[in-house]
Amino acid sequence: MSPSLRTPDVLISEVGPRDGLQSVKATMCTAHKCNWISALHAAGLREIEVASFVPARLLPQMVDAAQVVQHALTLPGLTVMALVPNLRGAEAAIAAGVHKISIPVSASAAHSVANVRKTHEEMLAEVRNILALRQERAPQMGVEVGLSTAFGCTLQGAVAEDEVIRLAEAVVAAGVDDCGLSDTTGMANPAQVRRLFKRLFAAIGHHAGAAHLHNTRGLGLANCLAAWDVGVRTFDASLGGLGGCPYAPGASGNVVTEDLVFMFEAMGLCTGIDLDALFAARAPLQAGLPGEPVYGMTPLAGLPLGFVQGALRG
Amino acid sequence: MSPSLRTPDVLISEVGPRDGLQSVKATMCTAHKCNWISALHAAGLREIEVASFVPARLLPQMVDAAQVVQHALTLPGLTVMALVPNLRGAEAAIAAGVHKISIPVSASAAHSVANVRKTHEEMLAEVRNILALRQERAPQMGVEVGLSTAFGCTLQGAVAEDEVIRLAEAVVAAGVDDCGLSDTTGMANPAQVRRLFKRLFAAIGHHAGAAHLHNTRGLGLANCLAAWDVGVRTFDASLGGLGGCPYAPGASGNVVTEDLVFMFEAMGLCTGIDLDALFAARAPLQAGLPGEPVYGMTPLAGLPLGFVQGALRG
Repeated sequence: MSPSLRTPDVLISEVGPRDGLQSVKATMCTAHKCNWISALHAAGLREIEVASFVPARLLPQMVDAAQVVQHALTLPGLTVMALVPNLRGAEAAIAAGVHKISIPVSASAAHSVANVRKTHEEMLAEVRNILALRQERAPQMGVEVGLSTAFGCTLQGAVAEDEVIRLAEAVVAAGVDDCGLSDTTGMANPAQVRRLFKRLFAAIGHHAGAAHLHNTRGLGLANCLAAWDVGVRTFDASLGGLGGCPYAPGASGNVVTEDLVFMFEAMGLCTGIDLDALFAARAPLQAGLPGEPVYGMTPLAGLPLGFVQGALRG
Repeated sequence: MSPSLRTPDVLISEVGPRDGLQSVKATMCTAHKCNWISALHAAGLREIEVASFVPARLLPQMVDAAQVVQHALTLPGLTVMALVPNLRGAEAAIAAGVHKISIPVSASAAHSVANVRKTHEEMLAEVRNILALRQERAPQMGVEVGLSTAFGCTLQGAVAEDEVIRLAEAVVAAGVDDCGLSDTTGMANPAQVRRLFKRLFAAIGHHAGAAHLHNTRGLGLANCLAAWDVGVRTFDASLGGLGGCPYAPGASGNVVTEDLVFMFEAMGLCTGIDLDALFAARAPLQAGLPGEPVYGMTPLAGLPLGFVQGALRG
């Protein structure tokens, strides 16, 4: 049967068009963004973070967010996500008609102040304001919080696990649908990933959301495996490993979608994604960002001889 | 307490000076090899595959194997290993005084014929001859078999797990001390690694040896984690990811020692290896192989803010 006919065992949430594009200096034009998103959808991706709603003076790469969302909404079966850092962004995202918004909340107090100039309590108040707006204008829209720097922070070092869990409980109590954990700085290790996600499930149950893990020190897939082992079923990843604050050439930030999908499919799991079509989606990315390095080892090595995707085996 | 004072939880077996050097075109001179091995030892590595004993016309990089072994034998506490493909190699390794030899046996029948021009039964006979020689000339020397292509083969595709286990049982029955599994072609996935090592432990118990895993498709560390989870405690790795048949630039073959040690130490485990000293051991490698690419993401990103090695926490 075709990959799309079996219910996927795992949801890969593509963040390249948002997280990736806002991390590079160049700006991809709207037509190229739309082509790329269509290619990702054609490969079987069913959740894509297509833009962020932020002031254009801060992130000119995202000035066309509403147009990109408009295009993405035409793709059947796709959950169209956008990142919003505050109430104003949420207003714009709702006006554009996204299916789901993602609000980053820094688990590190130092990072929160540096990144959005808000303390934890101020950020929690912002989340509550966004939820009230959702209630009023778009009750069908999903709201997710991603707890960034949940595994450590480049400003303050270690982040207390109790604080991460307290914030997760607070946003769920406020009415957020899902709360995920992000290794924004690439400091996580598999033991920590298992420990913290286990605590997250214990604290907020089915509201536990995506694992957003980075490959800064090469541990991206090992950390994804660790998260899978303790029950995580939604994983953020970026085609070509675009974005995610790479530290050095060759050292990508975001987990590479191609390698992550290969890992799960090789394990016999169904992602709903066709690997050859996924590799083909690198072409529109590269066409829209000429000269930008893309990562990923599976596309270079190719699929193993005799490889059959997990969905086709089952 | 210093890392070396706690008994390591895991043994990292460095294969760079053998596996790495025989995979690159350039030849490292003897003095540079010795410097590099000394630096690896100084970082805390206590098992190093320093050479292979093969005909110099096939692998001119290894012509000084006996001299390199002689130097390595002066380093306190180091298990000096060498690869030998046949009886003649074993004779030379014994004459050089190595502590342990590793014999590669292809799990794939097609790979065995292509690589050493021997069927499985002929190779098993060679292993028995080597064991008889050990009995006679060097009963204190360790003998390990690494079952190459255990997770798949670029010539024949899938390799039957029953055949892998049959070969492991056969070499242990013949008298080999340890039998490990090698993902020579970078085709392994975590589910398969867990399944096959579990079967290996069930079949040969404490004779189960090292996991030799590759990073060809980016799954190297995830596969190491999977092997650790089911009880593997010896891991082959190569400094800078040197060697292991890379398919493409940036796509290293061997698991990178630096990233692997970082992963285990970050998990709170003790490797006995000092990460800063390990990063410093890249300099003699690069000095001896100018222009050769080296891999590894942790050395580029650096250690996380506030990072403490596992051994120092415990």
